[in-house]
Amino acid sequence: MFRILLSLILLLSLSQAQENLVSWNDGKSKSNIISYVNAVTDVNSSDFIPVVDRIAVFDNDGTLWSERPVYFQFYFAMDRVKALLPQHPEWKSTQPFKAVIEGNMKEVIKGGKKGLLELIMATHTGMSDEEFDAIVIDWIKTAKHPTKNVPYTDLVFQPMLELLEYLRANDFKTFIVSGGGIDFMRPWASEVYGIPTNQIIGSTLSVKYENGKIIRVPNSNTINDKEGKPVGIHYHIGKRPVAAFGNSDGDFAMMEYTEGNKKYKTLQLYVHHTDDKREWAYDRKSHIGKLDKGLDYGKEHNWTIVDMKNEWKVIYPFELKK
Amino acid sequence: MFRILLSLILLLSLSQAQENLVSWNDGKSKSNIISYVNAVTDVNSSDFIPVVDRIAVFDNDGTLWSERPVYFQFYFAMDRVKALLPQHPEWKSTQPFKAVIEGNMKEVIKGGKKGLLELIMATHTGMSDEEFDAIVIDWIKTAKHPTKNVPYTDLVFQPMLELLEYLRANDFKTFIVSGGGIDFMRPWASEVYGIPTNQIIGSTLSVKYENGKIIRVPNSNTINDKEGKPVGIHYHIGKRPVAAFGNSDGDFAMMEYTEGNKKYKTLQLYVHHTDDKREWAYDRKSHIGKLDKGLDYGKEHNWTIVDMKNEWKVIYPFELKK
Repeated sequence: MFRILLSLILLLSLSQAQENLVSWNDGKSKSNIISYVNAVTDVNSSDFIPVVDRIAVFDNDGTLWSERPVYFQFYFAMDRVKALLPQHPEWKSTQPFKAVIEGNMKEVIKGGKKGLLELIMATHTGMSDEEFDAIVIDWIKTAKHPTKNVPYTDLVFQPMLELLEYLRANDFKTFIVSGGGIDFMRPWASEVYGIPTNQIIGSTLSVKYENGKIIRVPNSNTINDKEGKPVGIHYHIGKRPVAAFGNSDGDFAMMEYTEGNKKYKTLQLYVHHTDDKREWAYDRKSHIGKLDKGLDYGKEHNWTIVDMKNEWKVIYPFELKK
Repeated sequence: MFRILLSLILLLSLSQAQENLVSWNDGKSKSNIISYVNAVTDVNSSDFIPVVDRIAVFDNDGTLWSERPVYFQFYFAMDRVKALLPQHPEWKSTQPFKAVIEGNMKEVIKGGKKGLLELIMATHTGMSDEEFDAIVIDWIKTAKHPTKNVPYTDLVFQPMLELLEYLRANDFKTFIVSGGGIDFMRPWASEVYGIPTNQIIGSTLSVKYENGKIIRVPNSNTINDKEGKPVGIHYHIGKRPVAAFGNSDGDFAMMEYTEGNKKYKTLQLYVHHTDDKREWAYDRKSHIGKLDKGLDYGKEHNWTIVDMKNEWKVIYPFELKK
């Protein structure tokens, strides 16, 4: 009886192993990932990593979901400007609000990160954390991407969902370490990626505790980008990761910090946007998600560089249902 | 065969249930805890809380371990002053360092939180995070409490260790939310309390990322005390807890914030230091761990107030071994 049970369990786990990373074509990236995971989870290997130190960090924009034409939080901020306009008639004549109201995307993008931060501070504050959560949830359920015309959460990367799942099945703890707003991500990302809110790290605005509530205040608190990523990891996780996944030079410091882990074998992976048909193709000269320094350094250091066009069978989950 | 297995499993889990909270005397506090956990984990109860929202937050000093004569991190800072003195001859004539070197505890304590912060900034910075971890680990392994003459980690509360374990066995995620230094706690608290470093929240100094390392900088970054506790919870956890455990007015805001959870039944528990023989007795008029406002409010609001003297069979783990 026990032997039959054991055989059944063995068969089940074997069939599950075969089902890992199904949207990844066989190739260098897939085999790098699998050899790494096999090595560090093998108790008899010198590369073995105890479960408590299996920390994997993922960028979000461009790594777990698309980021084009601009970061999706930008669209949220713009929709918030339109919703709040009746209370702010002065926005009609002040940038960057004027450009948003007039739908002048060129002008909006010209404002860059400074303009985005200004839009975010004006539209993401003045309410409690719980009220803001409800606004984000309402938006993410109803808003649609300007060119793909599907909900933004449809534009997560199927192969990366499988990778998250595969790592967790091997007792990795998965974290998001994004330049995006921590409170913009948490209300939906937890469910979409299967990551608890306390493992989602991002840029923050100030908050204060008042009358039993957390109130959102229009001051930038932390920018979780570039060198801010290892800093965010330090505060939130408290140890060096062993695996890091990104797509741009904004993720470079986080990946370098992970590579610097002296105790354990590490894995660094860049999602390289090479597919101008199914997604977008961009790297060295892009405004959004520029990958230049990291691409050279990564190649020299044997980081895994995923060629989206050739290594991913599908990009988005909805392609599976076709 | 299966029925025998099932019966065995049932027996095992029953015997485990009976072994919960063994260092707690039967009484109001123990029964409050057990009824709460039974209610919120019962899928058929209207009080049921999904696993993902079972967030329990614990203060550290005075709640999970002792905090007398002064917070234990104070002794660490003082030992660091002595170790670093050769590089800082000027400390011999500057307060609060002079008082530390002369062993003038009265003068040291007179410096209050400001003095402590000054000691911490001067002694906890100027090295990488990993170098600091090693210093803390070395100290916690060798230093001894001035009056109890045992390692500080021997002075954790056995009944609270059992409570942490009991909550985790019921799928609660346990967090430390302490006014103490996040980086002072993480190197040892993770193992001692069974809490991953990323679930340990505390006050922070500034850090910067430089040459592949996190470098500790002598600037206070966040004070995770009083109103700072719900703010820390907001950033690190991203949702209201359902259960909060503290011992002083410094924990009040965190407990009030937890009580304000509108979605779920909540539990608030104060450890009341009433045992001047086995531990220390103090509350309303204490410099360290003052419990005044919270004691009145807690009684009015049916919070659980643990009478350490009468409700705890043992205080420290080493009493079990006698």
